[in-house]
Amino acid sequence: MCRWLAYTGEPLQPSTLILDPVHSVVAMSLNSPLGAEPVNGDGFGFAWYPEGAAHGAAPSRFRSIEPAWHDENLREISRAVRSPLFFTHVRAAGGPPIQQTNCHPFRYENWLFMHNGVISQFAQTKRDLALAVDPSLYPHIRGTTDSEVLFHLALTMGLADDPIKAVGDAIRMIESVGHAAGVKFPMQGTIAASDGETVWAFRYSSQGQSRTLFHSADIPTLREMYPDVERLATFGDHAQVVVSEPLNDLPGAFLEVPESTVAVLDRTGYHHEPFLDAAA
Amino acid sequence: MCRWLAYTGEPLQPSTLILDPVHSVVAMSLNSPLGAEPVNGDGFGFAWYPEGAAHGAAPSRFRSIEPAWHDENLREISRAVRSPLFFTHVRAAGGPPIQQTNCHPFRYENWLFMHNGVISQFAQTKRDLALAVDPSLYPHIRGTTDSEVLFHLALTMGLADDPIKAVGDAIRMIESVGHAAGVKFPMQGTIAASDGETVWAFRYSSQGQSRTLFHSADIPTLREMYPDVERLATFGDHAQVVVSEPLNDLPGAFLEVPESTVAVLDRTGYHHEPFLDAAA
Amino acid sequence: MCRWLAYTGEPLQPSTLILDPVHSVVAMSLNSPLGAEPVNGDGFGFAWYPEGAAHGAAPSRFRSIEPAWHDENLREISRAVRSPLFFTHVRAAGGPPIQQTNCHPFRYENWLFMHNGVISQFAQTKRDLALAVDPSLYPHIRGTTDSEVLFHLALTMGLADDPIKAVGDAIRMIESVGHAAGVKFPMQGTIAASDGETVWAFRYSSQGQSRTLFHSADIPTLREMYPDVERLATFGDHAQVVVSEPLNDLPGAFLEVPESTVAVLDRTGYHHEPFLDAAA
Amino acid sequence: MCRWLAYTGEPLQPSTLILDPVHSVVAMSLNSPLGAEPVNGDGFGFAWYPEGAAHGAAPSRFRSIEPAWHDENLREISRAVRSPLFFTHVRAAGGPPIQQTNCHPFRYENWLFMHNGVISQFAQTKRDLALAVDPSLYPHIRGTTDSEVLFHLALTMGLADDPIKAVGDAIRMIESVGHAAGVKFPMQGTIAASDGETVWAFRYSSQGQSRTLFHSADIPTLREMYPDVERLATFGDHAQVVVSEPLNDLPGAFLEVPESTVAVLDRTGYHHEPFLDAAA
Repeated sequence: MCRWLAYTGEPLQPSTLILDPVHSVVAMSLNSPLGAEPVNGDGFGFAWYPEGAAHGAAPSRFRSIEPAWHDENLREISRAVRSPLFFTHVRAAGGPPIQQTNCHPFRYENWLFMHNGVISQFAQTKRDLALAVDPSLYPHIRGTTDSEVLFHLALTMGLADDPIKAVGDAIRMIESVGHAAGVKFPMQGTIAASDGETVWAFRYSSQGQSRTLFHSADIPTLREMYPDVERLATFGDHAQVVVSEPLNDLPGAFLEVPESTVAVLDRTGYHHEPFLDAAA
Repeated sequence: MCRWLAYTGEPLQPSTLILDPVHSVVAMSLNSPLGAEPVNGDGFGFAWYPEGAAHGAAPSRFRSIEPAWHDENLREISRAVRSPLFFTHVRAAGGPPIQQTNCHPFRYENWLFMHNGVISQFAQTKRDLALAVDPSLYPHIRGTTDSEVLFHLALTMGLADDPIKAVGDAIRMIESVGHAAGVKFPMQGTIAASDGETVWAFRYSSQGQSRTLFHSADIPTLREMYPDVERLATFGDHAQVVVSEPLNDLPGAFLEVPESTVAVLDRTGYHHEPFLDAAA
Repeated sequence: MCRWLAYTGEPLQPSTLILDPVHSVVAMSLNSPLGAEPVNGDGFGFAWYPEGAAHGAAPSRFRSIEPAWHDENLREISRAVRSPLFFTHVRAAGGPPIQQTNCHPFRYENWLFMHNGVISQFAQTKRDLALAVDPSLYPHIRGTTDSEVLFHLALTMGLADDPIKAVGDAIRMIESVGHAAGVKFPMQGTIAASDGETVWAFRYSSQGQSRTLFHSADIPTLREMYPDVERLATFGDHAQVVVSEPLNDLPGAFLEVPESTVAVLDRTGYHHEPFLDAAA
Repeated sequence: MCRWLAYTGEPLQPSTLILDPVHSVVAMSLNSPLGAEPVNGDGFGFAWYPEGAAHGAAPSRFRSIEPAWHDENLREISRAVRSPLFFTHVRAAGGPPIQQTNCHPFRYENWLFMHNGVISQFAQTKRDLALAVDPSLYPHIRGTTDSEVLFHLALTMGLADDPIKAVGDAIRMIESVGHAAGVKFPMQGTIAASDGETVWAFRYSSQGQSRTLFHSADIPTLREMYPDVERLATFGDHAQVVVSEPLNDLPGAFLEVPESTVAVLDRTGYHHEPFLDAAA
């Protein structure tokens, strides 16, 4: 229902990825060819770990209910800071309410979380899922989205200790509660989470037909492939993104993250591994 | 934490009460001398049963997160409609989030509800209180306020069948859950509820020191007292309001609603009766 | 750059046309197949002459910078009122600022005005055009759009006395100032204006390639053509709209307003006549 | 009609001055004891020259129409950046429109500008003053405030070359046009302008009764006076502010800027000199 991007690598101005590419996230807010909806105009969020921040420091965040495409503050702020790891998200809501508390990324201590997709028939399972959230976390749920409940379930399941297991357990609980309520395919989506050091990006749906997800190719390799593309000089050797759809039309620059996979991006590079088996 | 007004009587332009009086609700948003806070600038709401609407019809509503004092839309809309029964509320939030779903009046079918006050230390009791809401109503809670939970508790307790008993039971539950969590005075506030025919206005706090509440004097009597006040000709014989503080400085025009009281306003007039006993 | 609708006829709930049709104006805000831009999410406006209002009374108006598609207030208000003549407009801005003062319809006394299109290279001619506005009207310009300046030029040229001549003179001035500044095709657009009795709808561009504009067919004729279309019973015999693109896919229900034409809609029906000759 | 603060000195987190003091600018937005209005809730702006920015670089800016007091984005951003020179402003509008383009600080290339006060009876003189703006600057006026016109007049008069003379000339023109229109005291206010190196702060009104303005005492001296005030250790030796009213109640910490004076704050310290003579 949305589009998102996560960056990790050498610190840079986030506008380099949020505003400048031909298919930037801001451009996707108005027109995302691969999205479930072409328009993602129901607010946005941008959260960043500041350059030079201490290990474990909480990220900063800017969220707004306005469409991203003409937002002047997003332009200003994404140019004014530098960050080695940031998330940005443009929202396509299933319906009201359009409010800042429903804008991703969600944040808890040093963790960020965002989601593109849906917990199907959430109104039927919302109460049971909210009750499964740790009571100490319950009052931190401030919006009305399925995604925020999913985040708090993952926190409850131990996101800080074992992110892959915790997100998997949260999804399994959503599927279990959904199936009990007669929902055939309870979970859909792509998810990003970070502690400020590593980005975990999940692509999974109960039906095995998940929203699109791509990761960028290795920058040194891309520079060899495209010696004339000046823009590639902007990026450090460790720059990498995971994003709902390719930021440009350069063949080979963006590679699909497979179904039922978790991608892990950190200072050592990119790898992915199987994540839950929808058929299981 | 807020200021509110409820009107019932002959249909009139709501602006007559929302905008025109010297101490109108819009004026109170910027400066309310008797308020717990002088400024009530964290959004507002206006909901009205349209003139000529069928019995049991749902009211219309306009809510905004902007301060009421300079809002052009509120001016337009409160002048453009006519209503025999309407609520308006200006909010002073304890903190973020400032969002439409946190703006009163709340609505469920043909019912309206608004509140000035607080469930003390709500973060500690929110989960238990939300769980006490009927599961079918739980997904209708869309904001983060204590007041919206209070409304849904009252609905759970049978607001539609016996409003006075239901609000009383909801408050007793809040006090019970609060006391169990170590909160000395869990409930504070004034509350208005309506089904479109009758307005019930409650003044109650666990400590016996409630927010201010006033009702207007009988209009024919006021006209006799003040034959030269032309403004009184604007109102029909059955016009009456209950409001957080007097709308003007006319001696005798506004009378205090006592502590631990519920006021009942309908086509037959005004009366009040004891409501819960804080000392009990 | 936008989409708009004007209705005149028997009083009805504006939601009947703003929300309910398959290609309603609210639907067009998210996806307008015939628009210069498919997304019109940069605010909206709705203005209506109330049912039973006195001759010459000013219309009411609701404007917002939010996208129309999920706006709850627009839903409420367009259902809560009844009107014999109303305008609604969804905006696609060329860029910031997104602000209420840039949302159409514009209003002056009992007049409404809205525009879909552009004064080309307006930054170059804005000052000269603003200076051509009557000095007494100049302080009433509150936003930054070309459309609002066009409206004030038309007022200056005598909109209240002879709307067709005044809009024509305003456009000729825009073309004259534009040509002097080296702009080849200074004017583009469709325009609606009303005094509360009559709607004038203009389709004109300097290049002779104007934005789309349609008017509805005669309702009694449509009922004969489509006896099974229940929705047609909703409308009175004199109901008519002029709109940027057809509200439904019923063949014959919407007819194109030709280039360089002004359509006139009033209680006696619809007619159109030539308006300026781009080739002249 | 507003409150503002300008800082120059060692780079620091702007939140140190915007959020943390007992009478911070955010606190003043809700309650400013010395203000012409106690509430300044009609939007705000924060603009900063980034730490390490090149000489002549344009500042970054965040503006919003929400009240500052509960704005979460202002909290985030003022903590996330560091700056050696920044402006912040909270607005009390005389009336609508409340829109970002009316929020100070205004910006042109590397210049910032903000104002607390009023051009009296501006509707009468707006057109003449706007015409006096250089035609190349005219299209940059995007809001409706007197303050933005004042800024563009100062730019027209040569702000970049001789700020004190240019602001003086702009004010003299306002007074001249105002007097011709029968306005007795055309100009009122305090003004701040900066090129990123120096802050000029003006206090002047035609009547000689200007809005309040204070500057901070020398930090090393304050540390000697108050060795136990830990907060003073937060600031560098060259930290200085000019602000609408004192940020704390420490005697001697804030000194009044006299009437008809321009204060100059730069890396060498603070001084002020006479500015226009109201009696002249």
